[in-house]
Amino acid sequence: MIPERTLTSELREHVGQRVRLMGWLHRLRAMGGVNFLLLRDRAGVAQAVLGPDDLAPLEGLHAETVLSVEGRVVESPQAPGGYELYEPQVEIISPVRDATPFALYKDRVRATIPVFLDHAVIGHRALERRAVLRLAAGVMAGFRKSLSALDFTEIQTPKLVGSATESGANVFAVEYFGRTAYLAQSPQFYKQIMVGVLERVFEVGPVFRAEPHATSRHLNEYVSLDVEFGFIRDHFDVMALLTTVVRGILDHLQETRAAELAVLSVDMPVLPESIPWIYFPDAQQMLHDRYGVKDAIGEPDLAPEHERILGQWAKEAHGSDFLFVVGYPMVKRPFYTHPSEADPRYSNSFDLLFRGLELVTGGQRLHRYEDYLAAAARFKYPPEPFERYFEAFKFGMPPHGGFAIGLERFLTQLLNLDNVRLATLFPRDIHRLEP
Amino acid sequence: MIPERTLTSELREHVGQRVRLMGWLHRLRAMGGVNFLLLRDRAGVAQAVLGPDDLAPLEGLHAETVLSVEGRVVESPQAPGGYELYEPQVEIISPVRDATPFALYKDRVRATIPVFLDHAVIGHRALERRAVLRLAAGVMAGFRKSLSALDFTEIQTPKLVGSATESGANVFAVEYFGRTAYLAQSPQFYKQIMVGVLERVFEVGPVFRAEPHATSRHLNEYVSLDVEFGFIRDHFDVMALLTTVVRGILDHLQETRAAELAVLSVDMPVLPESIPWIYFPDAQQMLHDRYGVKDAIGEPDLAPEHERILGQWAKEAHGSDFLFVVGYPMVKRPFYTHPSEADPRYSNSFDLLFRGLELVTGGQRLHRYEDYLAAAARFKYPPEPFERYFEAFKFGMPPHGGFAIGLERFLTQLLNLDNVRLATLFPRDIHRLEP
Repeated sequence: MIPERTLTSELREHVGQRVRLMGWLHRLRAMGGVNFLLLRDRAGVAQAVLGPDDLAPLEGLHAETVLSVEGRVVESPQAPGGYELYEPQVEIISPVRDATPFALYKDRVRATIPVFLDHAVIGHRALERRAVLRLAAGVMAGFRKSLSALDFTEIQTPKLVGSATESGANVFAVEYFGRTAYLAQSPQFYKQIMVGVLERVFEVGPVFRAEPHATSRHLNEYVSLDVEFGFIRDHFDVMALLTTVVRGILDHLQETRAAELAVLSVDMPVLPESIPWIYFPDAQQMLHDRYGVKDAIGEPDLAPEHERILGQWAKEAHGSDFLFVVGYPMVKRPFYTHPSEADPRYSNSFDLLFRGLELVTGGQRLHRYEDYLAAAARFKYPPEPFERYFEAFKFGMPPHGGFAIGLERFLTQLLNLDNVRLATLFPRDIHRLEP
Repeated sequence: MIPERTLTSELREHVGQRVRLMGWLHRLRAMGGVNFLLLRDRAGVAQAVLGPDDLAPLEGLHAETVLSVEGRVVESPQAPGGYELYEPQVEIISPVRDATPFALYKDRVRATIPVFLDHAVIGHRALERRAVLRLAAGVMAGFRKSLSALDFTEIQTPKLVGSATESGANVFAVEYFGRTAYLAQSPQFYKQIMVGVLERVFEVGPVFRAEPHATSRHLNEYVSLDVEFGFIRDHFDVMALLTTVVRGILDHLQETRAAELAVLSVDMPVLPESIPWIYFPDAQQMLHDRYGVKDAIGEPDLAPEHERILGQWAKEAHGSDFLFVVGYPMVKRPFYTHPSEADPRYSNSFDLLFRGLELVTGGQRLHRYEDYLAAAARFKYPPEPFERYFEAFKFGMPPHGGFAIGLERFLTQLLNLDNVRLATLFPRDIHRLEP
C-alpha cells in the first residue's frame, strides 16, 4: 500500500525513471567490481547492479532479507525480465542473519521431501514452489467460475459431524463437550440435501481421512472440490458436467497462470471435445484380451496397474489424457450409489482417469426415500443417525448426481509431482502435524 | 441437464408456447373449479392453472413432491412473476406422502429456532431461508472478487494442527494416530507465513472454537474470511483494504443478488467513501462525557453496550453504519499484535463495528523475529511448538497486517437476523451436532 512502490513486473513502464522496488533478497551475486542483487516480490524477480560501495548495507546479511531498492530503470536484454536498476540505493526493512536451510533461488528446490516439509514455511518462497501454490488457487478459481456460470451456488457445510456418515472406518474423533464428534470425510450427504434447496451446488473445503497408511498418494487432510446437481437423466449428465468443469479449470489456468505453468514446464493435457469412455466390464475384457492381464475379468474394481494401462490406451486410441470408466459393480460403491436400470449389478457411476490415475469418482445417487431405507437396512446401518438426513429424501428429491475432485491429486498429476505432499501448503500425514 | 426444461424465470420468453417446468410442489391452492399449482425451482416460483380433472395425479400427495409440469405460457398480471401455465400436464417425479413439519411456502418460516434447525435439511427450501444461503454465497464471491482484483492469492491452510496456536483455551482436541491434534481456531499464523511467500493472501474456510457458551451470537464452527498482506505502513493500510473489501461485498450483492435482498427486505447499510474512525481512549472519553457511561474510562475493552452506543453515534454524527475503533490496549490483544510506536500501551489494531456490533478485528502484526521471541517469552509460551512458525520471521518478513470477517456474523447483522444460527446451513453449538 506504499503508493510509490513499483513491482518487478512493471519496470518496462518506467525506463529512465527512478523507481522503488520492495521485496526479498533472492540472491546476491558478488563479483567484486560489479555485483548483481536479485530482488523477489510477488510479481517476479528483478536485478539491481551494485558497485563495490553499494554493498555496505548488506554486510553480514543473508538471502531473504527484506529490502527496498531504489534505482534508475535501464533496458538490458541480459537481465532477468529484460530490465535492471542502476545507481541503486538499498534500504534494509527486515534483516536476515542466518543462511536458509536450503537455497531458495534455484530453479528447483534441492532438498529431500522431509527436509523441505520441515521448512515449508520458507521453502514455499522458491519460485518453483510458489508457482504450485498459485496454480492451486487457479484450479479453485477455475472450478468456481465454471460452476457459477451454470447457476451453481456455493455452500459451506459443517466439518464437525455427529456420526461417521460415509463409512465407520477412517474417521477422526473429536472431543465435543463431553460427547464424541467426527471430522467430515466428505460433504456427501450435505451436498445431496442441498440439491433439494438450490438444485445445483458446489463446495471447496477440507475433508479428513484417518487412513493409517503413509504413501506418496494419500493425505489425511485435503481439499475437496465437490459438486452435486439435480434433474439429471443419469450419470452421463454428470460426466458431461465434469468435462465442462475440467475444461474450465484448464482454460482458466492457461488464461491467468501462464507464467506459473512456464516456471514448472507443465505439459498441458489433451482434453478432447468429449472425453472417451469405456464400460467397466469392457475395460476388463480389453485388459485381458489386448494387454494380457490375467486377473482382470470378474474383479469388482480396477487395480492401479489396470488404470495405468487404460490411461495409455486412451492416449493411443483416442489421443486423450482423460478416460471415463463407467458402470463399476455396485458391490464396490457406497450405499447411496444409483444402480443401472438395465443391470442392477452395475452402478450408474464412473471414475475419471487422468493420465492413468483415478482423479474423480462420481455418479448418479439414489433419490427415492424408500431406496435409502432399503440401502441402509442392507448395509445394516442403524436408522437413528441417518434419519435427519433421510428427511430430505422423504420430502422430495429429484434424480441427482455429482462428483468430487481432490485438489492435491489433480495438481500432482497435472504438474507431474513426485508426491502429493508437494501439491499442498502444509501436508498432514500419519507422521506430520507441523508446521 | 434435460434439454427441454424451462426455468420459472424464463416464461416471459415463451409466451404462447408449451414449455416444461420441473421443480417442487411449493403449494397447491385447490379452489374446486380453478386450482393453482405453485411450482418452485432454483430460479423462483411459477403458477399453473389446473381444472378439476388435472388434479388426479396429485391425489394423496403433499407439498414438496417433485414434479414436471408442461403447459402453455400465458401472460397474466395476477400470477406470481406475471406469467402462468394453462392446459397443464402434470407428471410426478418423486412423490411426497407426508406433510412437512412446518409450511415451506410462506413468506416467513413459522417455526421456533430449535424446530427449524431440527428440520433444516428441508427448512432451507423456504424462499426466505434459501435467500440467506444465496446471500452467503454472494458474500464469499464478493470477498474473493475484491481481493483477486488486488492481486491477492487464495490459500487453503490445514485445519488439523499440532498445537493450539492462538490460545490454549477453547480448542477442540482430535485423536490423531495415537497423538492429540487440535482443530485450528484461525489460520492466523499460516496466513502470516504466507505473506512471506505471496505477499497478499486470503482464505475462506472453517474455524473451530470450543467456547462452552450457548448464546445467540456464537457458533462453535463458523466460516472465516481471512486476509493478510505485506508492505504496509501500519494498521490504517489494513483499514483501507477492509473498507474496499466490505464495499466490494456489498456491491457484489446488489449486482448479483437483488432478488434475494428483496425477498428478505434487506436494508442495505450506508458505507461512506471512508469509514469514520475513533481512537480507543477517545471513544471511552466520549462514552463518559457525552453518554454518561460511568465505567468506560480505563477499561481495556469495550462492552457490547458501549459498542452499541458508538454505532449509534457513527450513524448520527457521520451517517455511517460502520465505525472503526482504533488502538485497543495491548493487554487485550493477542501476542502477535504490533504496538503503537507513539505509545506502546496501545496497539496498531482496530475493530470494525457494523451497526454497533463488532464485526471484524484486525491490525498490524509483529514482523521482526526478535519481537516474536520476546512476546512468546512474555506470554510464557513454550518455544518448541512455535519454532517452526517463527522460522518464517527469522528469514525475513515485511511489515504486514490483516483481518478476519466472520461470515455468519456479517450476515446476521446485514440481514438483521435474530440468531447467528440462522445465518448458516447447519449450525454447531454446545448442544447441536446434527443435522
